[in-house]
Amino acid sequence: MPKLIDHQNKKQSIAEAAWRVVLKHGWEGMTVRNIAKEAGLSLGSLRYYFSTQEELYRYAKELVHKRLAERIDEIFKEDISPKVKIIRVLLELIPVGGELTLETEARLIFKLHLRHEEKGFDMQQDSVYAAVKNVMSNLVLLNLLNREADLNLETERLYALMDGMALDAMLRKREGKIEMAQKMIIAHLNSICKEEMEAEL
Amino acid sequence: MPKLIDHQNKKQSIAEAAWRVVLKHGWEGMTVRNIAKEAGLSLGSLRYYFSTQEELYRYAKELVHKRLAERIDEIFKEDISPKVKIIRVLLELIPVGGELTLETEARLIFKLHLRHEEKGFDMQQDSVYAAVKNVMSNLVLLNLLNREADLNLETERLYALMDGMALDAMLRKREGKIEMAQKMIIAHLNSICKEEMEAEL
Repeated sequence: MPKLIDHQNKKQSIAEAAWRVVLKHGWEGMTVRNIAKEAGLSLGSLRYYFSTQEELYRYAKELVHKRLAERIDEIFKEDISPKVKIIRVLLELIPVGGELTLETEARLIFKLHLRHEEKGFDMQQDSVYAAVKNVMSNLVLLNLLNREADLNLETERLYALMDGMALDAMLRKREGKIEMAQKMIIAHLNSICKEEMEAEL
Repeated sequence: MPKLIDHQNKKQSIAEAAWRVVLKHGWEGMTVRNIAKEAGLSLGSLRYYFSTQEELYRYAKELVHKRLAERIDEIFKEDISPKVKIIRVLLELIPVGGELTLETEARLIFKLHLRHEEKGFDMQQDSVYAAVKNVMSNLVLLNLLNREADLNLETERLYALMDGMALDAMLRKREGKIEMAQKMIIAHLNSICKEEMEAEL
């Protein structure tokens, strides 16, 4: 494997270890020592990849949004109908089990921690907000959004709904989570669109 | 002041100190020592009110929901139109500044922490879920809910929206928060109701 790619992969696997640590032990337990242990590295090796704790934290936080943005780009490129794309993109924001749950849960914990930051929360760096804005402008482009709908307000409403659904999916263990999330997304889209969004996914 | 009421008041002020500590220092910083300091008490005096840490934590968590449930009962009893009541109840769930912000933010932090509990999240103990269910059954009672609306799904959707809006209000500092929250709630209700909910608040 080329050295640069190997280096990137290693950094990513350390960031993933940081996600697991923050989910298990909370923010205060996310020490460099705990992350090194979780990643199966010595403190010295970890420092080879991240020279400061801040650098590691920032990388771990940004990787969550980078990964999500990449997956959403992939969905938009797929050879499926625009309506199905929109539903698939929104479903991608909910942790409904499987590999991506860790990433989504880490995203929520990181987001909540932003309340401690002086400059507050910057939506422009939030991949979820970007995805929701993208969905809304697609609805406009496709002439699907109701004429009387207020685009700004509906963007905010969908954004809040997606975060609330993600939080709920993280906390509540229940059967049929994916089906319920899908139904809720379709019901929401139908309520702001001129045409039914119901489609084979 | 009668002794029993004084005792209850003291317990509540310790619980409020616990909320401030968890918001400032996170879950791991919510030690009995930090709470005593925040409440201006010695460890010994604090132990007089709560003999174990678990007891204090449980009380602090339950007080959030008790207070919210009481405020919502008060709103329902007010001499205002049912539609205005419904909007006011939902607005009560969002931290839009003022005294109640601390309580609402503590509720979100406590909620998120439930992911560590084995038995998971129990909605039946969530005052927000109770409020949302109450609102939805009032919409049915008043013949306001759209005939084609799925009551269970719409309850879940409104619940997720309210949590997402609360999270957002907690993280994003911005002007006109209350007005925006109000508009979003009215837009949401209008989208599931037969009649316009727009009303003088």
